[in-house]
Amino acid sequence: MLARAVAAGAAATLPRMYLPRRIQHCRVCGANAEYRVPPDDNRERAVCTACGEIHYENPLNVVGTVPVWGDQVLLCLRNIEPRRGLWTLPAGFMEFGESTADGALRETIEEAGAKVEMQGLFSVLNVVRVGQVHLFYRARMLDTSLNPGPESIEARLFREDEIPWDALAFRTVRQTLELFFDDRRRGAFGVHVADIS
Amino acid sequence: MLARAVAAGAAATLPRMYLPRRIQHCRVCGANAEYRVPPDDNRERAVCTACGEIHYENPLNVVGTVPVWGDQVLLCLRNIEPRRGLWTLPAGFMEFGESTADGALRETIEEAGAKVEMQGLFSVLNVVRVGQVHLFYRARMLDTSLNPGPESIEARLFREDEIPWDALAFRTVRQTLELFFDDRRRGAFGVHVADIS
Repeated sequence: MLARAVAAGAAATLPRMYLPRRIQHCRVCGANAEYRVPPDDNRERAVCTACGEIHYENPLNVVGTVPVWGDQVLLCLRNIEPRRGLWTLPAGFMEFGESTADGALRETIEEAGAKVEMQGLFSVLNVVRVGQVHLFYRARMLDTSLNPGPESIEARLFREDEIPWDALAFRTVRQTLELFFDDRRRGAFGVHVADIS
Repeated sequence: MLARAVAAGAAATLPRMYLPRRIQHCRVCGANAEYRVPPDDNRERAVCTACGEIHYENPLNVVGTVPVWGDQVLLCLRNIEPRRGLWTLPAGFMEFGESTADGALRETIEEAGAKVEMQGLFSVLNVVRVGQVHLFYRARMLDTSLNPGPESIEARLFREDEIPWDALAFRTVRQTLELFFDDRRRGAFGVHVADIS
């Protein structure tokens, strides 16, 4: 997805624990909703005061890739807020009708226009403060042709010593890149699970 | 979570591609919403005809554990629909304020009352048809005391040759158990990523 993908991992601007309470009206009948604990539940939900519909809100997945060409990885310079002008791995919210890998591939095409072969799941990073799980796959670039979409100012390849560490958009991107280069040095790629504080 | 967790993985009863379109009214102002492609997007969303609010709908995570005691694993007999009377690993929808592992642990306590030490992420299973990703962790039981919650008729330990393969509630549970016993036989546990058709 496009504009909305920008919110991925923007933890710094949000309160410590992200509990959205944005549902003021029922999606079914339009009447007022209020937050209370439904019967047989143990958490507050937005419940319709007229028809009783319960509105659940849950964490979302952000899916992306580490696109690799030889000893280089592909980053995109963000053209949208937040973090416009900072570098990111291609990533965005997972959509209905796709798997985590499907979504990661789609975002790689949308944001960079890169042609890649998907490889293994590489990082699963919980960003509890914003209610997101970020999943990055390794991806092998098939050529160096790029065609960045409107969300990206540009897309380009970086060797490890060229990575703009001080100009990365999100902590999950930094952590995924650090883990990637560590694993590449030791010659074996794992699946890394961590929490981003 | 409780009653709603029952929908996890109930793919057989749903159409091939799950695209919920249940938003009839705006959550902000209560006016009518209609499905159309917003500017700068490429998918239909529920957009408010009055205030313009865009309502995104995305896949959700179901998180659970494979609780292990010696050569046995813990299953719960479901007390809620769908699949009441069938066996499942403890699992349910991930909630705000928790990591994938936090949620998996919470569900293990809620559904079985088991005391466990969380271990590694074990399976990441895309259930595209219902818009869910199921993530199971291995968990080491600290004792055999159990205290099943209202969602479970009972919880009990099974050796591999006792698993009720024909009475399992969900395909993600079956696949996770098959992978678990395969890995245990070869003496090494991986992280398994797969799509459930």
